[in-house]
Amino acid sequence: MADPGATLPERLAGIVGGPHVLTAPADIEPYLADWRGRYRGAARAVVLPASTEEVAAVVRLCVAEGAPMVPQGGNTGLCGGATPDTKGREIVVGLRRMSRVRAIDADNATITVEAGVPLAAVQQAAAEAGLHFPLSLASEGSCTIGGNLSTNAGGTAVLRYGNTRELTLGLEAVLADGSILSALRGLRKDNTGYDLKQLFIGAEGTLGIITAAVMKLFPAPRTRVTALAALASVEDAIALLAQLKTALSDRLVGFELMSAFSLALSRKHHPGSPDPLPGHPWYALVQADESSEGAPLASIVEAALASAIEAGSASDASIAQSAEQAQRLWALRENVSEAQRREGPNIKHDISLPVSAIPAFMRECARELESAFPKARLVVFGHLGDGNLHYNLSAPEGVEASSFMDNGERANRIVHDAVARHGGSFSAEHGVGQLKRADLVRYKSPVEVALMRAIKATLDPRGLMNPGKVL
Amino acid sequence: MADPGATLPERLAGIVGGPHVLTAPADIEPYLADWRGRYRGAARAVVLPASTEEVAAVVRLCVAEGAPMVPQGGNTGLCGGATPDTKGREIVVGLRRMSRVRAIDADNATITVEAGVPLAAVQQAAAEAGLHFPLSLASEGSCTIGGNLSTNAGGTAVLRYGNTRELTLGLEAVLADGSILSALRGLRKDNTGYDLKQLFIGAEGTLGIITAAVMKLFPAPRTRVTALAALASVEDAIALLAQLKTALSDRLVGFELMSAFSLALSRKHHPGSPDPLPGHPWYALVQADESSEGAPLASIVEAALASAIEAGSASDASIAQSAEQAQRLWALRENVSEAQRREGPNIKHDISLPVSAIPAFMRECARELESAFPKARLVVFGHLGDGNLHYNLSAPEGVEASSFMDNGERANRIVHDAVARHGGSFSAEHGVGQLKRADLVRYKSPVEVALMRAIKATLDPRGLMNPGKVL
Repeated sequence: MADPGATLPERLAGIVGGPHVLTAPADIEPYLADWRGRYRGAARAVVLPASTEEVAAVVRLCVAEGAPMVPQGGNTGLCGGATPDTKGREIVVGLRRMSRVRAIDADNATITVEAGVPLAAVQQAAAEAGLHFPLSLASEGSCTIGGNLSTNAGGTAVLRYGNTRELTLGLEAVLADGSILSALRGLRKDNTGYDLKQLFIGAEGTLGIITAAVMKLFPAPRTRVTALAALASVEDAIALLAQLKTALSDRLVGFELMSAFSLALSRKHHPGSPDPLPGHPWYALVQADESSEGAPLASIVEAALASAIEAGSASDASIAQSAEQAQRLWALRENVSEAQRREGPNIKHDISLPVSAIPAFMRECARELESAFPKARLVVFGHLGDGNLHYNLSAPEGVEASSFMDNGERANRIVHDAVARHGGSFSAEHGVGQLKRADLVRYKSPVEVALMRAIKATLDPRGLMNPGKVL
Repeated sequence: MADPGATLPERLAGIVGGPHVLTAPADIEPYLADWRGRYRGAARAVVLPASTEEVAAVVRLCVAEGAPMVPQGGNTGLCGGATPDTKGREIVVGLRRMSRVRAIDADNATITVEAGVPLAAVQQAAAEAGLHFPLSLASEGSCTIGGNLSTNAGGTAVLRYGNTRELTLGLEAVLADGSILSALRGLRKDNTGYDLKQLFIGAEGTLGIITAAVMKLFPAPRTRVTALAALASVEDAIALLAQLKTALSDRLVGFELMSAFSLALSRKHHPGSPDPLPGHPWYALVQADESSEGAPLASIVEAALASAIEAGSASDASIAQSAEQAQRLWALRENVSEAQRREGPNIKHDISLPVSAIPAFMRECARELESAFPKARLVVFGHLGDGNLHYNLSAPEGVEASSFMDNGERANRIVHDAVARHGGSFSAEHGVGQLKRADLVRYKSPVEVALMRAIKATLDPRGLMNPGKVL
């Protein structure tokens, strides 16, 4: 029995061992702020359980003490969902010690992983079994699969493989009463009542703590073709996307749109970047993968791009002739975010729309933003294949950070209102966290908000699971 | 205002119009029994609303009157989920008049359909837009998309395209308080709070009534290759499946296993059926689709099968040389159910397992069944690619129906216990309905059952939405 006079951190240490409960300011520091540096909180302690049973015991103890919990994986989220509030009462439950690959089943094409396994390690374990785990994000070296599950992460291969939700077959989670929901089934068909795992995927830790999952694996790609296409308009980009989907079907893995300005920024801040197709208003980075032997992927991509140029939907195209050239084309796209940061202050939007609504949305929204912020510069890029745009504003040259960032809320409203008018989403892949709680209430219908609140109240009646996030 | 003395059917008629409320025994007859003839109920009335608003008004009225509701689509379910109970108090809410295709968006590759649209009509509307809706079931001419959603239907193309759940982007449903959840978004990425549509998919109408949905569409297949492979064992079938997945990737759409006995039954009761590869213990029907132009699907399938024969995982193979030959190969598989019916009484199981667990499961389960029912004949076939088996028992020759069917519960227990030991599911694609309620409580963990009941109580506190089904 624990000493009844023991403090909560002392009693947590009784569960996970002394070295795995952090309370010293220097020790807990890395757990208190989000990756973008927008949120900074305080915590009573950080506890680092190493097993599902330890997580369950931690939850039961915290519930008994009325202590709110904040689950945290790699702490790479973009909406403050894993950052404690500023009151210093919360316990951060770090999952990184739960880092075992529990099983890999090649015949069933599944992998069973604990929440704290870094995404790159899941990819690696799959590759070692001759298979492929397709989820891929910029932060894959440090984000964890538990965080990916809790935010339903998207990334660069959604067009072909779906979001994290679509990659998940089974789940294990600790509920708000400390009981363990054990549903680690590796089944592609299972119609036996409500699909409970769906509740926890994308819930950002507000309904329970995900501790493990069974994920789908796929045949490994053997051939990869990367190309850049120059385009006259966003309408042409959509036409090209449709043509490539028809020509390539599921071999089309990525279709990334970039405006000329976003590409110029990327090159400006990364000297030595290639400029294969200068002088066009829009560009699409096309990625095709083939896992079959003997299928002529390169010639199919070449023919598809040639016929798109003939049909007028693409102005020009350049196919990478080596892995190194492909990598340099991808760097153009991947460097946009960093280039925007170096260019100065910026306001970001992670939105999605029906692909068909994108041109009208862009025309309308650009007009409204230009009238509200005459000299701000639009930086538009993103996963057009999924209808997901990073629709950002960079400050006019020479403008100071703080004065431009004061416009954030007004700019968000203009963009998100336009998104809503066109049937889109104010958060395509980053989630809600703390950042977009007001948007959730504004843009979801009252029926949706009420139903979410009812589910939250049912699963977490005392409101101790990551309070102040999502809802 | 309705006459306060009016009966419930009269007041329902005030909502949907007199001709759309059925109470005469002959009129309601088709709504009272399930397709397999296992369940037969009674109803106070059948109401046939034509719009979401009418469904909502019907629900509000029934709730006010305390009348339980049973939603029904094409009434082709296999577990009695759409059949009223025998007390005669329930209102059957038939959705078939809600049969509009509300929108088709080729650029976004989505279709918005009302619940009562027959599955074949959804396929047809997609084809007319040059696209493909891949859900395909034996009952597709009469089942409705609302029923497919409510049961998370599987079918013959799950290996490539997923279940109905994976094909759904947006949903509209009437909740148990008569409010309308409107989430008909055609977005491939949308991380804005809990994914509410997941609750209603597969819930068999116990949490609300699905009225419309936005479904994903795909490029239409251009080339199709169908082959039959002869196999020495189930282990070989699994090896062949892995080899074909590697060789064909997403071009592998179907991989159907058949035992020699199930094939023999199919041929016995369908004279004129082909017998391309006589004398092997197991067979796999392989279906590959290609939607790209210029990709040599036939030669890839041929090479993959040749190298499987060389590697010893397949004993022999025959590739259909025409659409007519392909159709005749598929008929071998599709006729098994009917052949089993003609052969006499049988006990059916719709189970799924991790693919890797199937050989051990089969050995164990066959041994137990043989010892319990010495002369019964195992009829094993199904969607091996998804781990989904129709693992059935036909009566020994000459045995009377009723005496054999008395064994149903004992046989179910043997099979489902073995399934559970191997991490499988007692209902892969048919759902729970009335038929498998006891299995749900037996094989799900108490935590899962408690969580399902909590969700049911939250969404349907008065228990009026399809009571006595699932839970």
